[in-house]
Amino acid sequence: MSSDFGRVIRVSIFGQSHGEAIGAVIDGIPAGEKIDLDRMDAFMRRRAPGGKGASQRKEADRVRIVSGLVDGYTCGAPLCGIIENTDVRSADYKAMADIPRPMHADYPAHVRHGGYNDVRGGGHYSARLTAPLCFAGAVCMQLLERKGIMLAGHLLSAGKVQDAAFDPVNEEPKVLLQLLEKKLPVIDENAGEKMLAAAEEARQAGDSMGGSVELCVLGLPAGIGEPPFGGVENRLSQALYAVPAIKAIDFGCGREAALMRGSEHNDPYTVEDGRIKTLFNRHGGILGGLTTGMPLLLTCHFKPTPTIARQQQSVSLSKMENTLLSAGGRHDPCAALRAVPCVEAAAAIALYDLYLEAKAHGHPLLA
Amino acid sequence: MSSDFGRVIRVSIFGQSHGEAIGAVIDGIPAGEKIDLDRMDAFMRRRAPGGKGASQRKEADRVRIVSGLVDGYTCGAPLCGIIENTDVRSADYKAMADIPRPMHADYPAHVRHGGYNDVRGGGHYSARLTAPLCFAGAVCMQLLERKGIMLAGHLLSAGKVQDAAFDPVNEEPKVLLQLLEKKLPVIDENAGEKMLAAAEEARQAGDSMGGSVELCVLGLPAGIGEPPFGGVENRLSQALYAVPAIKAIDFGCGREAALMRGSEHNDPYTVEDGRIKTLFNRHGGILGGLTTGMPLLLTCHFKPTPTIARQQQSVSLSKMENTLLSAGGRHDPCAALRAVPCVEAAAAIALYDLYLEAKAHGHPLLA
Amino acid sequence: MSSDFGRVIRVSIFGQSHGEAIGAVIDGIPAGEKIDLDRMDAFMRRRAPGGKGASQRKEADRVRIVSGLVDGYTCGAPLCGIIENTDVRSADYKAMADIPRPMHADYPAHVRHGGYNDVRGGGHYSARLTAPLCFAGAVCMQLLERKGIMLAGHLLSAGKVQDAAFDPVNEEPKVLLQLLEKKLPVIDENAGEKMLAAAEEARQAGDSMGGSVELCVLGLPAGIGEPPFGGVENRLSQALYAVPAIKAIDFGCGREAALMRGSEHNDPYTVEDGRIKTLFNRHGGILGGLTTGMPLLLTCHFKPTPTIARQQQSVSLSKMENTLLSAGGRHDPCAALRAVPCVEAAAAIALYDLYLEAKAHGHPLLA
Amino acid sequence: MSSDFGRVIRVSIFGQSHGEAIGAVIDGIPAGEKIDLDRMDAFMRRRAPGGKGASQRKEADRVRIVSGLVDGYTCGAPLCGIIENTDVRSADYKAMADIPRPMHADYPAHVRHGGYNDVRGGGHYSARLTAPLCFAGAVCMQLLERKGIMLAGHLLSAGKVQDAAFDPVNEEPKVLLQLLEKKLPVIDENAGEKMLAAAEEARQAGDSMGGSVELCVLGLPAGIGEPPFGGVENRLSQALYAVPAIKAIDFGCGREAALMRGSEHNDPYTVEDGRIKTLFNRHGGILGGLTTGMPLLLTCHFKPTPTIARQQQSVSLSKMENTLLSAGGRHDPCAALRAVPCVEAAAAIALYDLYLEAKAHGHPLLA
Repeated sequence: MSSDFGRVIRVSIFGQSHGEAIGAVIDGIPAGEKIDLDRMDAFMRRRAPGGKGASQRKEADRVRIVSGLVDGYTCGAPLCGIIENTDVRSADYKAMADIPRPMHADYPAHVRHGGYNDVRGGGHYSARLTAPLCFAGAVCMQLLERKGIMLAGHLLSAGKVQDAAFDPVNEEPKVLLQLLEKKLPVIDENAGEKMLAAAEEARQAGDSMGGSVELCVLGLPAGIGEPPFGGVENRLSQALYAVPAIKAIDFGCGREAALMRGSEHNDPYTVEDGRIKTLFNRHGGILGGLTTGMPLLLTCHFKPTPTIARQQQSVSLSKMENTLLSAGGRHDPCAALRAVPCVEAAAAIALYDLYLEAKAHGHPLLA
Repeated sequence: MSSDFGRVIRVSIFGQSHGEAIGAVIDGIPAGEKIDLDRMDAFMRRRAPGGKGASQRKEADRVRIVSGLVDGYTCGAPLCGIIENTDVRSADYKAMADIPRPMHADYPAHVRHGGYNDVRGGGHYSARLTAPLCFAGAVCMQLLERKGIMLAGHLLSAGKVQDAAFDPVNEEPKVLLQLLEKKLPVIDENAGEKMLAAAEEARQAGDSMGGSVELCVLGLPAGIGEPPFGGVENRLSQALYAVPAIKAIDFGCGREAALMRGSEHNDPYTVEDGRIKTLFNRHGGILGGLTTGMPLLLTCHFKPTPTIARQQQSVSLSKMENTLLSAGGRHDPCAALRAVPCVEAAAAIALYDLYLEAKAHGHPLLA
Repeated sequence: MSSDFGRVIRVSIFGQSHGEAIGAVIDGIPAGEKIDLDRMDAFMRRRAPGGKGASQRKEADRVRIVSGLVDGYTCGAPLCGIIENTDVRSADYKAMADIPRPMHADYPAHVRHGGYNDVRGGGHYSARLTAPLCFAGAVCMQLLERKGIMLAGHLLSAGKVQDAAFDPVNEEPKVLLQLLEKKLPVIDENAGEKMLAAAEEARQAGDSMGGSVELCVLGLPAGIGEPPFGGVENRLSQALYAVPAIKAIDFGCGREAALMRGSEHNDPYTVEDGRIKTLFNRHGGILGGLTTGMPLLLTCHFKPTPTIARQQQSVSLSKMENTLLSAGGRHDPCAALRAVPCVEAAAAIALYDLYLEAKAHGHPLLA
Repeated sequence: MSSDFGRVIRVSIFGQSHGEAIGAVIDGIPAGEKIDLDRMDAFMRRRAPGGKGASQRKEADRVRIVSGLVDGYTCGAPLCGIIENTDVRSADYKAMADIPRPMHADYPAHVRHGGYNDVRGGGHYSARLTAPLCFAGAVCMQLLERKGIMLAGHLLSAGKVQDAAFDPVNEEPKVLLQLLEKKLPVIDENAGEKMLAAAEEARQAGDSMGGSVELCVLGLPAGIGEPPFGGVENRLSQALYAVPAIKAIDFGCGREAALMRGSEHNDPYTVEDGRIKTLFNRHGGILGGLTTGMPLLLTCHFKPTPTIARQQQSVSLSKMENTLLSAGGRHDPCAALRAVPCVEAAAAIALYDLYLEAKAHGHPLLA
């Protein structure tokens, strides 16, 4: 497994869904940075299970920071945050050792680990591992904020319900701040109500649905990124796919760009108040793998939660024959609904790492 | 910059579009592997400029391998391949030092490097750097083939013209082999003709257009991948975004998955001839960051070539005022048309690295 | 800080001497490996404080493995082992925040972290961090053993007292096994007695003394190593200097080699029972950064424990003036006495990583 | 192989002794840095063969920089320097494919690469690969100098002949400058004469001899280093062992420290002209893996050149029987004599990387 990320900072995630504890180690953060633990806890609660339209599993997800902090300030040593697994019900998953759940990691993990993988709740492949990811991301978000960089996401869609989109050119910080406060982060509250209703309807139908999360980052200076292999898209993708169920990411216009003409797609430059901007922002704030100083915009597309109540066709690994599977366990009917903080967290880790790397590599505005 | 890629192998790319030479170093390849240089040259020619619908720049793009090979076999030392830049016309680009081309890396690179970046032809940000990427990829494709793994791409779309898609469940190796032989890799030759016509039409209109490339990988064993941060999607994205102009990647159904129900999207397992397969392949051969043994399918979406003949609005960096730009230089009206081998190359590098890493990490079928 | 090590496996160490907990995450270990926890505990006890000639600090140093193990077997997810800090007396160290202890990390750490470093017990710079190192090393030693590779160290010297040295050509596994069982690992028991007496004498004189640890590794196949930057000496040194107080490492004859003639130093090859060996082993089992199949031999030289009871000259960081320091706290008079398992652990981590890397890079005997 | 080094910068070395070309790629250097090519050439000539007491092989070792420089300034793209192998005589080495030279990498390389390794001149294991190392080091030395950091080495011993040592506390920059100008870098010219005579005497006796190189670094700020695994000793060792024939490195007092008492070894702090210094410098400028602001001092010990004219016992790999070997080829009787710039180069690479990493990690004096 490759459970670590980062070149200048290094985030290492450990744990299995139903093991004793999960957590993350974050190395390379400068000393003397104040970490606001209340805000970190508040961020963790955004992804915590138990809300409407979410799994019934209830856990405090309280992070115990056992190293790296002295009197609330980073001391230069790695930050380690541990979350005990308090509410574990493994019985649900026993049978699944033999019958892989369609569209989950069960079968390829069985092959990879020769049957030794932790099948309880998906083990290290579980979405539960996004809890330590969010811990690490919450720390990086605070550090980015201190550099004037703010990010927030919202549910752009859940099933067929669409939220309003970010303003690609003039999005305001207060919109992002509001999103960070919301239990269900949507721009249009009406859309949020409809999303929850759609998710509940899907659940009652023994089904699930996909969704998408749009992320906006404000305040990034131009020139961050390490292309060709460490460009902003490369690194953000590398981090974001640690969030389970993402199957596509659009940067700026993303897939739409493939259908456009250059004359339609190109963003002209202009000077405004002594700063260089683009008139539009189809490029999503990234050109040539580098930030341009415009808002960074991306959208992550989530597949429907694989576990559904309906019976599905699968196989018995021991008998090598077809069989039917009725999934138990507790699951979200729409993984995207809880994924907004995970997307924010993964992006914050990648961007903070890139920020420090650009500084190390002599970016003239960061030195 | 982060011009290197890989954990078990390490590919390092160097050069600027109009510098003396470009090239790549590939470290970590086992000794005793025969490298077929003719096939490598043939692969390089697939991306070489000069074809219909492509830039008018003509270069042999002949790779001179100066290390790592003895009598045609790898010797355990890093492979270094060098391509001299023989046909360089820098004059075209002189004015661009002050007036950044919209939608290119010019402006953010200027900020990042404090004006010291090589502006000639985009420097290290140029698509020309895909030549050494293709060299490295051509080597990895030969090595993967020896493990029974084959990959090929085709132009799924160019502008509004669509090619037929791969068969996601039963694609045949011979289709891939044919694609690798074609100058313009399309499944449906008619579509190819229309694409070239559309590109020519766009060029004559002083415009450009986007496109998309679909990739299919056959023969991957199940269980390859290093999630959460080194899963197949993470690593493929990290490598693929080294190909300029990609703005979105779909894995399997990709963005469509977000609009589907779980019952529509889930791929049931079945036993066929003693092997476990899925009945459909909406998952694109990847679950939980691991390969499943089904064909791996992804689609890269390319933005329209930014350089167009039409006048565009830009700024003068020295005067900090708006100005108009008329681009000269030689450019493809549709970057995607030459991008197929680049996508194949980047994917091959990432997959070969993941293959060796899985072996190192004890994958029971590779030991 | 760079608290992580390894290319194929990845060991990440966290914690401060007097923080809440310390530990290590080990990623990349193959699944299905049985970990003998009793042997791991026994190994941890070798370095635990409380023995004769050691610090008076008493802690169980019990490792709680919170992830990566299912029913005693690795499951492919990262192993995380946590050691709670149970016996913490920080008061001793309060004054040291202002007056750096000579020959400790206190002063440079103060500069590096702008005064935010954890000064309690040396924080992340404390020798206490060798506990998680030993946990990681104990795991790697078991995994190496399964490949037929065994290693053990002994105190070659403490102060002026010398132990017998390993037989460089024909050392027997049983000697290594015996050393691994000993509380004070020496080949000649008499020497051990004298070492403890010398340490006690130094302590009573308010002083401390240096020492050296010789390590022998048996069973390594020839051809392990990744030169030029990842050769066996490079990687072993990179890992071993994580053990505090080492100031020199000799490989084979080490420093003596500089005084020898080629004709004295060269080890002739010979064929013995169908295997290639060297008649002598001045090269310490490493040539050109690769193992040769002969016993790997190295010696780590430890400086005297810096903390001594005698008054020493130091400075007040706040007043920027000279001052005297009388150190309190609990310290070993000879760091080397407890360092043997630390040397074994660091070496085991580096060698296991190199073993897997050689396999990934196509070593023909390991494939 | 692991032919790359560095976390913030990345140096990748390629080539074999008798291949077409050798070289290095250096990625991550800030843009806008002037590189003085004349000084770089001068530095390269220090290690070039052809001098007294050196191999008879004559090559210009002229580095052709094919990327990364525009008008003499770094442009942010990787620097690639290539050295053509102009004077290649492979015939000398043909027989050695079957009969490994004692104390060379021949035999373990044969095992590692399954006989596919390049045996001509040692291939990638040859000391010739120190030429690209010196190129990369020469660049880093210029960059360090711009930060006020200067380094130089001298031959502390060759055979039994000793040079004067550096002044560990008050060494002056002009002494270092002088050493950098000398063809044979010694402090005491008399010693240099004797060393050359001893080397000549050894050669005529068909023999070789070892030696040692002492390095001094001035101007390093306190607090550089990334312990525990990236401390200054860890990283310097990791880089230095890329120089062939080193078998031991002493930091500060090094091995002597093991024989000392704490009260003898400890360096008291003092305030001098408003700066904190140590009265002595037994610690060699490194404590806890961090620089202290005192001169950094280390000594590398080189084994005797393995290739000697005298007949030696070896084996036939094909027949698996003992045989005699008479070495041909051209070789230095004392590898250390040409090793001084190699030691400087390897150290400069490691220190420049650590400098940038400390900056990225928030070192308050470098931000």
